[in-house]
Amino acid sequence: MQNASLEVKALTFDVFGTVVDWYSSIVAEGKKFGDTHGIDIDWTQFALNWRAGYGPAMNKVRHGELPWQNIDALHRLILDDLLDEYNITDLSETDTDHLNRVWHRLTPWPDAVSGLKRLRKQYIIATLSNGNVALLTNMAKFGGLPWDCILSAELTHHYKPDPEVYEIAAALLGLSPNEVMMVAAHPGDLRASQAVGFQTALVPRPLEYGPGRVQEVTAHPSDIVASDFNELADLLGVE
Amino acid sequence: MQNASLEVKALTFDVFGTVVDWYSSIVAEGKKFGDTHGIDIDWTQFALNWRAGYGPAMNKVRHGELPWQNIDALHRLILDDLLDEYNITDLSETDTDHLNRVWHRLTPWPDAVSGLKRLRKQYIIATLSNGNVALLTNMAKFGGLPWDCILSAELTHHYKPDPEVYEIAAALLGLSPNEVMMVAAHPGDLRASQAVGFQTALVPRPLEYGPGRVQEVTAHPSDIVASDFNELADLLGVE
Repeated sequence: MQNASLEVKALTFDVFGTVVDWYSSIVAEGKKFGDTHGIDIDWTQFALNWRAGYGPAMNKVRHGELPWQNIDALHRLILDDLLDEYNITDLSETDTDHLNRVWHRLTPWPDAVSGLKRLRKQYIIATLSNGNVALLTNMAKFGGLPWDCILSAELTHHYKPDPEVYEIAAALLGLSPNEVMMVAAHPGDLRASQAVGFQTALVPRPLEYGPGRVQEVTAHPSDIVASDFNELADLLGVE
Repeated sequence: MQNASLEVKALTFDVFGTVVDWYSSIVAEGKKFGDTHGIDIDWTQFALNWRAGYGPAMNKVRHGELPWQNIDALHRLILDDLLDEYNITDLSETDTDHLNRVWHRLTPWPDAVSGLKRLRKQYIIATLSNGNVALLTNMAKFGGLPWDCILSAELTHHYKPDPEVYEIAAALLGLSPNEVMMVAAHPGDLRASQAVGFQTALVPRPLEYGPGRVQEVTAHPSDIVASDFNELADLLGVE
């Protein structure tokens, strides 16, 4: 492992769940939004339902049932359905668009910014997310995430775990796949990157779906397993 | 002008010549490279010749005479011809590749980092260069350029001034063209961005081709003209 990780020049990061805490962010902003707009619903469940629509919506794009569209557009499709379901019918377009862009305003996990700042001293650090470029750029500004480069599935018109997403990331970084390490909380993402030749680091985020819904990570033969980004920096020998 | 610039959400920057001083950087590194490898040539002229090959090489790609390839590849094509011309025949592949990547190690103009740090407080700041993503990412790390996002002609397989480059930049930023301001030292780049609907800022760099070759900027009706990035920040009302 130590030998392999010496080759690594860039770390690419899954973002939703791995870098940022979408659950708490959406629940908190949803509650405020509800107070302002007189919407009294369980925002916990709303956040979970919104996120639950994400995989199936991407799969429709991946399998050709929907034409290519980015995550802002897919989040909006799911949101419109949810607003119908919750019988929330009187929001303006401006308010609905603002709510949809809550995904641009997600809060980093407590270790994320300090860990990334350390990792950045030794490696190129880039997003490699299904989130679109604008979302990731705005989120980085919102949360102070010090990326060297914003890479997104949007650049390929494919979604992870399609191999094209990982392949283009390595190509755009001018690196061979084994010089890139994918960092993610989700074994499926790591498996797909590994199939393309990436090295991998698993950083479990047991609270991704909120307290009381602790995620058990199914076993994955990662090159590195770290409990957070600072431990990842330690394991990679970064000061 | 003031009203129009209020709409601007992102600034996109030409890089070679506008943000970084390719001439001085290549001459300085060339001289060192020459000392190490016993190559006694006029590195001033070498730098100018290398750069002179850049436009024609891109035009071959733009007009279909060469298949798509990124700037690293085009720089290498030109470099190989130049090495032949100068009768430099005994460089290893590693050394030639290192020399070719001098374009990843260009020094920012003295105002660039401080100006960008100011502009970044109020705007999304992104590259919009014919340089490839890896080159721009490595250059940012080398020179401390605080980009929010690396955008490149490479993402479209077109080169500036093709309109596709500007169009995809606005689309990836999730903005309409009039919410984006192109910043460049070169009127042709500004004209092409303006044709797509961008706002423009001209920042002349009279020393781009070295002292004694002062560049006169041909008139261009830019929304803003600034002598450097700090004056640009002043004119845009950034602290």
